[in-house]
Amino acid sequence: MSKRIDFRPVILAGGSGTRFWPRSRRARAKQVLALDGERSMIQQTVERLKPLGKVGDTWVITNEFLAHEIAEQLKGVPAGQIVSEPCARNTAPACGLAAFLIERDNPEAVLGVFPSDHVIADEPRFLKALQKGISTAASGENIVVLGIEPTRPETGYGYIETGELTPEGSALHVRRFTEKPNLMRAEEFLAAGNYYWNSGMFLWSARTLANAVREHLPETAPHLEKIAAAFGTPEFNQVFHEYYSKCENISVDYAVLEPRSAKGEHSSNLYCLPAEFAWNDLGSWASLYEYQLETRLRGDGDSNVAETEGHLALDAGNNYVYSPKKFVALVGVHDLVVVDSEDALLIAKRDSSQDVGKVVKELTASGRTDLI
Amino acid sequence: MSKRIDFRPVILAGGSGTRFWPRSRRARAKQVLALDGERSMIQQTVERLKPLGKVGDTWVITNEFLAHEIAEQLKGVPAGQIVSEPCARNTAPACGLAAFLIERDNPEAVLGVFPSDHVIADEPRFLKALQKGISTAASGENIVVLGIEPTRPETGYGYIETGELTPEGSALHVRRFTEKPNLMRAEEFLAAGNYYWNSGMFLWSARTLANAVREHLPETAPHLEKIAAAFGTPEFNQVFHEYYSKCENISVDYAVLEPRSAKGEHSSNLYCLPAEFAWNDLGSWASLYEYQLETRLRGDGDSNVAETEGHLALDAGNNYVYSPKKFVALVGVHDLVVVDSEDALLIAKRDSSQDVGKVVKELTASGRTDLI
Repeated sequence: MSKRIDFRPVILAGGSGTRFWPRSRRARAKQVLALDGERSMIQQTVERLKPLGKVGDTWVITNEFLAHEIAEQLKGVPAGQIVSEPCARNTAPACGLAAFLIERDNPEAVLGVFPSDHVIADEPRFLKALQKGISTAASGENIVVLGIEPTRPETGYGYIETGELTPEGSALHVRRFTEKPNLMRAEEFLAAGNYYWNSGMFLWSARTLANAVREHLPETAPHLEKIAAAFGTPEFNQVFHEYYSKCENISVDYAVLEPRSAKGEHSSNLYCLPAEFAWNDLGSWASLYEYQLETRLRGDGDSNVAETEGHLALDAGNNYVYSPKKFVALVGVHDLVVVDSEDALLIAKRDSSQDVGKVVKELTASGRTDLI
Repeated sequence: MSKRIDFRPVILAGGSGTRFWPRSRRARAKQVLALDGERSMIQQTVERLKPLGKVGDTWVITNEFLAHEIAEQLKGVPAGQIVSEPCARNTAPACGLAAFLIERDNPEAVLGVFPSDHVIADEPRFLKALQKGISTAASGENIVVLGIEPTRPETGYGYIETGELTPEGSALHVRRFTEKPNLMRAEEFLAAGNYYWNSGMFLWSARTLANAVREHLPETAPHLEKIAAAFGTPEFNQVFHEYYSKCENISVDYAVLEPRSAKGEHSSNLYCLPAEFAWNDLGSWASLYEYQLETRLRGDGDSNVAETEGHLALDAGNNYVYSPKKFVALVGVHDLVVVDSEDALLIAKRDSSQDVGKVVKELTASGRTDLI
């Protein structure tokens, strides 16, 4: 059945790229870096979806800093479908704009929203889950969210509370979307067993998403519709600049999915598809280290992950090192993140690696724009 | 008086340069690096002695790996006085050769032996001490050793046990030279109050040193005399290669000073001149850090010493960082040594920095001669 469905991947590739400093900079954020493997995160994202449709049907919503690099990296995506937001407005306007653009072409098309900076280890399982989800999204007004089985009481993610299985058994009704919990609640969620991490990957028809935006964001929807109507005309850039800044700055989770879930388990049309593949949103150098160690891509005998021109560890373990052109010697050090770039070097304790954003803030404050 | 004395600095600049890897390599050992300040260690050593005599009277005993770089750095020293040992034979043959060479020119000349890789913070005091020492060395058969007042129970240095003050009160009779002690003995030495660190800086007339070598190294002395006799002739290199390898591989302390001290406090003619200047032999990255922090050359408010193109420390302290062309961010890390070079990067715990030599050994064993 899924073969006849018109599937349109929508890749969200905004982001300012501070968490992977000094590799990530404003013009080369996480999405365009090859953090894991030979190809960049966004190249892997697009490649991974190839078996489900044509690369030429892909849309990318990004920003002006990254658009050029993304166009270079994604030669198969038509240039017009790489859309640069004139200002950052979070995911609701981005998803909404994609919905209105694709709705004009085919309201029945199933639009898959994918972050461009997550890693997924088991592609066959990923594709199997997506095929199910696309079928579900294509029937009626259904909204499908890919949920990740939680492995720790993570406080950095939103959670999905699930209810009954659907009759065909492939998805779960959604009871509630929750914001990032505190540790106590996260531990409850983990213990309860029916909570999933919100992966940020959604499936819905263009019409369903467009109507959801009209319903839940009544002030923003008309701006987005004006922009979509101007697409392909000489006025597009001007209209985009004028109306996009007027849109609400809000996530699609908070704007659409949470209020929709309030309609109740059986009338919201919200489904969670539990994913059975290894997934990581690479939120920091520490999570890249953990992911690469788990998937045994680069760990040595002392659990050092080193992307270097050779390395030597003497009484040194559990370090992440990136310095591809150099030989790196680690002596007596543990739990570090070391990232070398042409003009900057980061040495951080692994459990402080989420503070890397503070470095970028300080650099911004002190006028070192050459480094950000 | 010292003005009329013919003073000849002899700079010992052998060494294989493993402890300051990755900055130091075989062809750019510690001596030729600017570890502390703008000029290299050997340039500072020669410069420091300028007020006591002519740079052109300086001799340098080095090896074939370093000779070229040293000649480049010491333009004022005649090329013929930069002598490359064909093989390493420790300090006794090096000092002995200098003595025989200078004795042929002027047996009364006072020869000052100086390691080329120590830092000295207070030059006026250093010069004052040397002037006294040169006078003492010029009278009779005296041997003068500069002693450093110990500040900790260091087990890496030899100690000098001193006895009575000389009548004029400027020096102490030497009772005994001791090898590197264990910690318990080092603590006893520190508590006793009459022990000094052996600085490796010696003063004696060419005749006194030459005769001491003849007396204490009767098999080695004739080889060295042959080499000295060939100096300036076309056969010099061949003679040097042939006879130097036959010399005993032994330190001047062990070969000459220890047996001499056995003659007793009043007949050994051995004197210790307590030095009152800040001194450091820069034995490791950790000691460079400590020296620079003490002398307040580069410490920031968190006791980070950073030779970088800017640095930022967030909850990070007591680190030594060398990466002169890069901005370095330290996040949550303490007590590290970070040294960046073109082709290699070292990250070490500060108290493991003496293990850096092991890195060089491993690199040698694994055939990475490009890195050593």
